[in-house]
Amino acid sequence: MSTKVKAYKKENPCSYALGASITIELINTRPEIVREVNIHSAYRGKMDLTELCQRKNIPVSFSDKAFNIVSPKENCFVFGVVEKYIDAISPDKPHIVLVNPSDMGNLGTIIRTMAGMNYKNLAIIEPAADIWNPKTIRAAMGGLFHINFELFSDFSDYKAKFPGHRLFPFMLNGTTVPEDAEKCEKNSLIFGNEAHGLDKSFLQVGTSIKIPFSPDIDSFNLAVAAGIGMYIFSRKNGMI
Amino acid sequence: MSTKVKAYKKENPCSYALGASITIELINTRPEIVREVNIHSAYRGKMDLTELCQRKNIPVSFSDKAFNIVSPKENCFVFGVVEKYIDAISPDKPHIVLVNPSDMGNLGTIIRTMAGMNYKNLAIIEPAADIWNPKTIRAAMGGLFHINFELFSDFSDYKAKFPGHRLFPFMLNGTTVPEDAEKCEKNSLIFGNEAHGLDKSFLQVGTSIKIPFSPDIDSFNLAVAAGIGMYIFSRKNGMI
Repeated sequence: MSTKVKAYKKENPCSYALGASITIELINTRPEIVREVNIHSAYRGKMDLTELCQRKNIPVSFSDKAFNIVSPKENCFVFGVVEKYIDAISPDKPHIVLVNPSDMGNLGTIIRTMAGMNYKNLAIIEPAADIWNPKTIRAAMGGLFHINFELFSDFSDYKAKFPGHRLFPFMLNGTTVPEDAEKCEKNSLIFGNEAHGLDKSFLQVGTSIKIPFSPDIDSFNLAVAAGIGMYIFSRKNGMI
Repeated sequence: MSTKVKAYKKENPCSYALGASITIELINTRPEIVREVNIHSAYRGKMDLTELCQRKNIPVSFSDKAFNIVSPKENCFVFGVVEKYIDAISPDKPHIVLVNPSDMGNLGTIIRTMAGMNYKNLAIIEPAADIWNPKTIRAAMGGLFHINFELFSDFSDYKAKFPGHRLFPFMLNGTTVPEDAEKCEKNSLIFGNEAHGLDKSFLQVGTSIKIPFSPDIDSFNLAVAAGIGMYIFSRKNGMI
């Protein structure tokens, strides 16, 4: 085994893509960040996957014990060791901005939706759930390797860096429904934290958007709200 | 303690609403099914909640030990004991139909979205994730108590019971985007299982719907796809 496998920690330089399909997606999308692939003895596609790794010059290990460390609870027969990276996001493309997202499942699901909607640039305002945690990577279902993302310590830093973007904060008391928002290529859809949403200062930021809902709930799930917003905006702007 | 508290099992006649806000929503929406409310000694709103329960004639217990049984891992200070029920769904309202949903988090999130979008009738085709599992109830965030649901062993039984509904199966190779689907009050939006979607026989059922997406993903998360579908249809048909 070329890499010493340890349980995931946020401060580690590497993370893990758990599961065969996510690992294969990773190898095909960003082979340069795959330090190693580990294959369990019970995995049926061993030959094909070994061949794929050889073609991409990725070392392969066969340590069943490593799965107990990396994925003790899950039914997982392949994992990839990923070198963490950060790509700056593009000033010319539409953005998703997540302010203090706290749930790794939601974060991963939003990234999966982004990849599907051709929103390929994500700004995260910290503190935030760890984008590199294997749970986030798993919920993103390979989507993480198709997007760029950048971390900011404050929303004002994000705003100052991208003065050409039109800002659309999604808020419970927003002024405009998504269908009525203006078309524009460089749009930034901004979503707040699961528990608190965006604070009221965002009402002064760009055009605030409200997804209407009945009085029977307090809010939508964050990943659902982001999915609805992305769909309406990506269709309106010809992104999908 | 009036009820003997046991760990949740699917075959039990009761389930648990975990957490103060969901339990309060439950008491206000369907007090008749609440057998008991249990309040932890560390809960700060003890007085108000006890008073609410007294007003609704709901017994209150104060057993800290019961939390170890019902919610060993979670940070939960109130739970309600709920009697399970099944309400027939309405032939005059729009429906959501879930064919073999397997993930309790997705099922609960879809129910939360339904309550928000005024889709108040849910048909579930079995086998399916347990709608009464505390994890489903928790993901639904109180939404479960605002909808009716009915279980069917086969899609054909559902279809035969509601001949007046127009059927819209959501499929990867559907023919129509949601925006272009016809308006109609009695619509049924049909979604398949997380891993397999709907089988191809559904292409012959009503108008199949495709949510467009980029080649970078295989599919959307089920709760996200259902959220997008519900939003477009509920807006189109004046439901929200």
